[in-house]
Amino acid sequence: MTTFKRWVLAKRPDGVPSTDDFRLEQSALPELQDGQALIRVDHISVDPGMRSRLSGDSYAPALDIGATIESAGIGKVITSHNAKLKEGALVWGGFGWQSHLLSDGRGVQALDPKLYQGKIKPTSAIGLFGIPGLTAFFGLFEIGKPKQGNTVVISSAAGTVGATAGQIAKLQGCTVIGLAGSDAKCAYLKEIGFDIAINYKTAGDLTAALKEAAPKGIDIYFDNVGGETLDAAILNMRKNGRIVVSGQISEYNTRTPRGIRHTLPFITQRLKMEGLVVYDFSVQFGEARQQMAEWVNEGKLTYREEIIEGLEQTPQAFIGLFSGESFGRRLVHVS
Amino acid sequence: MTTFKRWVLAKRPDGVPSTDDFRLEQSALPELQDGQALIRVDHISVDPGMRSRLSGDSYAPALDIGATIESAGIGKVITSHNAKLKEGALVWGGFGWQSHLLSDGRGVQALDPKLYQGKIKPTSAIGLFGIPGLTAFFGLFEIGKPKQGNTVVISSAAGTVGATAGQIAKLQGCTVIGLAGSDAKCAYLKEIGFDIAINYKTAGDLTAALKEAAPKGIDIYFDNVGGETLDAAILNMRKNGRIVVSGQISEYNTRTPRGIRHTLPFITQRLKMEGLVVYDFSVQFGEARQQMAEWVNEGKLTYREEIIEGLEQTPQAFIGLFSGESFGRRLVHVS
Repeated sequence: MTTFKRWVLAKRPDGVPSTDDFRLEQSALPELQDGQALIRVDHISVDPGMRSRLSGDSYAPALDIGATIESAGIGKVITSHNAKLKEGALVWGGFGWQSHLLSDGRGVQALDPKLYQGKIKPTSAIGLFGIPGLTAFFGLFEIGKPKQGNTVVISSAAGTVGATAGQIAKLQGCTVIGLAGSDAKCAYLKEIGFDIAINYKTAGDLTAALKEAAPKGIDIYFDNVGGETLDAAILNMRKNGRIVVSGQISEYNTRTPRGIRHTLPFITQRLKMEGLVVYDFSVQFGEARQQMAEWVNEGKLTYREEIIEGLEQTPQAFIGLFSGESFGRRLVHVS
Repeated sequence: MTTFKRWVLAKRPDGVPSTDDFRLEQSALPELQDGQALIRVDHISVDPGMRSRLSGDSYAPALDIGATIESAGIGKVITSHNAKLKEGALVWGGFGWQSHLLSDGRGVQALDPKLYQGKIKPTSAIGLFGIPGLTAFFGLFEIGKPKQGNTVVISSAAGTVGATAGQIAKLQGCTVIGLAGSDAKCAYLKEIGFDIAINYKTAGDLTAALKEAAPKGIDIYFDNVGGETLDAAILNMRKNGRIVVSGQISEYNTRTPRGIRHTLPFITQRLKMEGLVVYDFSVQFGEARQQMAEWVNEGKLTYREEIIEGLEQTPQAFIGLFSGESFGRRLVHVS
């Protein structure tokens, strides 16, 4: 009999989550039934977007108290009574913050060995080739619609979504400006090809800093932050500018969201602001992964990971996202 | 020699404009030159959108101090040395708040007698068939993209833009809910075919009122107001909802705009918010007017005017727009 550990929601966070909001449980896995497979989870993701699921707000389906925290994960099939899940196969899916699970195969996919080879590590299945990278890809192409010569500004640019969107925008012939919260992150952005990197913590007036960086205005603002940062971008948008609402990390932890002050430029500059949930594009995921893999193998697209050791550390790893301490795709190695 | 009167910008308004911000000047018109025509202005418009042009803000080109206030107008060609402008013809253009002007014909158009006949009065050239009606038409079709069965909410619904957008949305098979500031306006909305009319001044919590009126959510929000009203709509938008930013009357008179608080629903509900400047669609104006004229002649589209008597009253007529006292397209009869 296998015991397993999982993190459940102990109570709903008030503001920034604390470790008390989560509880680690240990229990025995039930017997494997026909059609099931036992998966050992190797890596799990921590995602800022999960924050709004922890609250009982009305926009997204809230996670129940006592439920396992949801997340993406990669694992290995240990024992299988399911023809689709071969023993020994590497698989990924929405495994949640836990060490093992029994699966009937729904929502679980084997990693395609043709994709995950050479420079492409299996963990990228829940990073560059998972929701963050796909959000960058579809947000940029479907909403941002980059054209040669466009000026693109990206917030949280050193995160996986931002860094991927920025590198892809460069490949489309855009000038790319990234906002990040440390000089080290800004140096990284320059390394991976951003034209300008602004440390928003030391830049002073962000509206003025963006005006200096993009004197002709912003064509595409790829927003992972919201609030004041979004306002600063709005005040610098060029005629017919597009705002991709990919994430709103500044708004996840508050009951009284700040929002934006400036809606008049939507008229005068004919702005468009649009949000996306990347699952709406799932029929095109294969194609997007293929394109991104080509870029990685040609050295045109890079990807940074940060591995936190131990399932026990998962809530801390998650909470750290909101202070900006993470740098690259943050995963937890369950071990 | 003809003398003429005109209203100029005396100083930039602080908050809601006051009559002191404008100055009436009287002077002699210069001699008519070759290629020019003398136009006597009969009706002029007062438009809330002009408010932001009076301030020195950075989004729209500000009107200079001492300049004639810009507006649409209808007039008659009195004397002409210009082949395009026939004496006696009714014409319209961006005449401004003045009694006469000399024109070289640029930006001036004769009223097409085939269009302006029967139920269609010449004054509608700067109302239903002018910028307000065209804004409703293109805002609704190009951004709102109404589909049979959609739920459409419209703010400032008793104004020309709102009432026109609402009636056209009804013709597309939508359920239409209007927001207006008096019971008389709400009664008018019901008369012209709106399904539900909400008096926002007496409705209490607007978010709750919209939830009750549109229990399945809003597909299209046609916004003429901004601020709290826009927030209430955002909280009730349905998946893939479209927000047409047509006007933001609640934001024109303030140095510290309120904006919106709720940007998270842009992600969770995949919302799109887009502003328009109707001149961008000018090549399609003829077609739109033809379509609207058909509807008017078939009795499917109606239009309400409110004529204020005397050029002297123009600033008062303009200022009254911001307290919601106007009801229908407000024009000033110069005489």
